[in-house]
Amino acid sequence: MFERVAVIGVGFMGGSFALACKEAINCQVFGVDINPEAIKKGKDLGVIDEGSTNLENIREFDPQLLVLATPVRTFIPISQSLRHVLSPDCIVSDLGSVKGKLVYRMEEILGERFVGGHPIAGTEKAGVENAIKDLFKDKRFIITPTQRTDLLAKEKVSSLWKGLGSLVEEMDPYLHDFVFGAVSHLPHAIAFALIDTIQKLSKEIDLFRYSGAGFRDFTRIAASDPIMWRDIFLENTQEVIKGIDAFIESLLLLKNLIEKGDEKALQEYLAFASNKRKNINQ
Amino acid sequence: MFERVAVIGVGFMGGSFALACKEAINCQVFGVDINPEAIKKGKDLGVIDEGSTNLENIREFDPQLLVLATPVRTFIPISQSLRHVLSPDCIVSDLGSVKGKLVYRMEEILGERFVGGHPIAGTEKAGVENAIKDLFKDKRFIITPTQRTDLLAKEKVSSLWKGLGSLVEEMDPYLHDFVFGAVSHLPHAIAFALIDTIQKLSKEIDLFRYSGAGFRDFTRIAASDPIMWRDIFLENTQEVIKGIDAFIESLLLLKNLIEKGDEKALQEYLAFASNKRKNINQ
Repeated sequence: MFERVAVIGVGFMGGSFALACKEAINCQVFGVDINPEAIKKGKDLGVIDEGSTNLENIREFDPQLLVLATPVRTFIPISQSLRHVLSPDCIVSDLGSVKGKLVYRMEEILGERFVGGHPIAGTEKAGVENAIKDLFKDKRFIITPTQRTDLLAKEKVSSLWKGLGSLVEEMDPYLHDFVFGAVSHLPHAIAFALIDTIQKLSKEIDLFRYSGAGFRDFTRIAASDPIMWRDIFLENTQEVIKGIDAFIESLLLLKNLIEKGDEKALQEYLAFASNKRKNINQ
Repeated sequence: MFERVAVIGVGFMGGSFALACKEAINCQVFGVDINPEAIKKGKDLGVIDEGSTNLENIREFDPQLLVLATPVRTFIPISQSLRHVLSPDCIVSDLGSVKGKLVYRMEEILGERFVGGHPIAGTEKAGVENAIKDLFKDKRFIITPTQRTDLLAKEKVSSLWKGLGSLVEEMDPYLHDFVFGAVSHLPHAIAFALIDTIQKLSKEIDLFRYSGAGFRDFTRIAASDPIMWRDIFLENTQEVIKGIDAFIESLLLLKNLIEKGDEKALQEYLAFASNKRKNINQ
């Protein structure tokens, strides 16, 4: 399928993708990262076969697929540099959490060979040393083609991810940003904000000391990489803001029921949420 | 120490407490629950030795310790009934998540033998069938004595919990409500509200379908028992409201940084939260 795959960003996601590809299609992987330590670790751990801190060095490797696994705000400048480095038939895809207009901007630069993708998998961990070979198994992979996307390129990317064990699903790029703005970006914003709140309330007593398992589960995603999330929030601003506003409305409704002491309506609100949550796997 | 222990509320918490006591001090346990099914299951599973749906039947059992493990808003009416059922030297304690004025009201009814307690352990699960013998091991147990609390009663309750493997810590009842209002009640309110939000945003597409592991961890506590949480919110209203207000302020600050596109301040906000969260165990 692909004999030579390049991965830009040798971190947790890029590293996991490289490991998964090497296992599934036995390809050679070339890694690029601005951090020489990541390249060294990636090679030492056998996650990548070759690597460089310099994008230009991809030219010689001549990949058939290149995947962006860096924070999303680097995608445009990297793509601009890539144009002069890649052969015209190299397919380009990504692991980014934001699609929408970013996909169309990528397409302007790279043409129809660009196929947007977003694996719904990850942890709060960062770094190639934490990469997990099976990260994408039985997880969704959202592919976000446009009318312009090359069909063969789309099929090849889709097949690759199926080969990694993912459940591939097509979605409009803008719908993607609405969906994941709600179920992923909004919860992350909330988790980061909750840590800020608890810190501010910890004036006379270190409240973090008293956190139980619930708090730790709840805030685990707040340990996620700040640069990755800064970029997601700044690229999907509109949906994140809408999500925050809708959430504050829900929270104010709950606050109001508590303040009024409306037992019945409060119980209904909580019971609905509890039942709904129980019906989600895990 | 205690040969006969009564537990009011044969659910997940009461059941776990009964199991832990039976193992640690080899006592007899009498369970009371309004639901005859819970009594039957509790007996069948060996969680309780005897049981009844009628509080009056405790009289004959003559416990030396009675522990309330029902939703907190039942504490006052149950305590009023207990007065006529318990021997005067039976110590009374509880597993409730709210202390503050509730402790003082309990003291008015039951006298100095009441010792408020709150094990910082639990899951979103309910029901005696899910009870866990080791639930309290290596977990904090917050004991909330007042100036009036009988010292011997306090010592006995404290020793019992140390015997169950808990880390016992004394705290003023009102301070308790501030602390757990922030690190436990607020996150639960947020989790319930987030489910409400995602439901409301799921007009044209079932957003829950796209939830990943992060969302599931984040909202797990929203599957908690709605009656238990209705009672906690209605008993600790003031601190919960203050927590919600402080949280909305933090979230609006984050929203503002995103809206302004303030890269530097946004990254600082997220990096602070990420580092802080990483420093909490697990």
